[in-house]
Amino acid sequence: MKKRLLLTGLAFALGAGITQTAVSQVKPEIMVKQRQAAMTLQGKYFGPLAGMAQGKVPYNKDTVAMNAALLDALSRMPWDGFAPASKDATVKTAALPAIWSEPTKFQEAQDNFHKAVEALVAVSRGGDEAAQKAAIGGVGKACGGCHQNFREKQ
Amino acid sequence: MKKRLLLTGLAFALGAGITQTAVSQVKPEIMVKQRQAAMTLQGKYFGPLAGMAQGKVPYNKDTVAMNAALLDALSRMPWDGFAPASKDATVKTAALPAIWSEPTKFQEAQDNFHKAVEALVAVSRGGDEAAQKAAIGGVGKACGGCHQNFREKQ
Repeated sequence: MKKRLLLTGLAFALGAGITQTAVSQVKPEIMVKQRQAAMTLQGKYFGPLAGMAQGKVPYNKDTVAMNAALLDALSRMPWDGFAPASKDATVKTAALPAIWSEPTKFQEAQDNFHKAVEALVAVSRGGDEAAQKAAIGGVGKACGGCHQNFREKQ
Repeated sequence: MKKRLLLTGLAFALGAGITQTAVSQVKPEIMVKQRQAAMTLQGKYFGPLAGMAQGKVPYNKDTVAMNAALLDALSRMPWDGFAPASKDATVKTAALPAIWSEPTKFQEAQDNFHKAVEALVAVSRGGDEAAQKAAIGGVGKACGGCHQNFREKQ
């Protein structure tokens, strides 16, 4: 029951369509740290799914469902950390100038990622392994598509 | 409708009660990086709420609902990063040895935190500002209670 209550709360919160925090005066270095933290955790929870889709990690439907749900939350977290003020950060970052010089393209890349994560969450409940693996591939493609243009080559 | 679908997915995933990833062979340094990332983001989304509870940030019910929902996801993320193998990490960490020498106490501190976040999520939907601020205080206390015993003094 308690779990259900929590999730109803989440439904309400997300239904409100708010994806920004109330923070207005965050230091550029903190913005970079926070957005990198979100990327780190996206990697933590996407990594095993990518491994499953590639046949390198045993398929586990519960892990797909849980990690997809966590990715749904994480996918909302990095973007306010790329606010123009973050350009002044004096810390190491792989963010390319195109993020700020091509904002429409950057937004499209974010939208592609959100759609891909939504598609994964949508199939993550069922036991359709092939559909899940295809959706995992879609998320990977969206990650790569954004990194291709907006992240320094690693 | 799409949002609702997503959230049903999350309900399923969380209902399964799985809080671990499928990752088994993660390097100690990566474990530290990932758990620190989770703490960083907990700070990002809890900070504004703490500010509201303390009267330093204007109260905003939508931010309370959204941040509580994101904290619900984030509160599940740090703990597997404290697995015993992470003790071998050669990177800077504020984690104290008590984490591994007093596992029952550390688990209790985690449980207290989860309960406090659940309580916040439960009241985050309504417009009861006083109840929300009290629940925010409860989360802050749970954070501090764990840091007191298990994190190096900052």
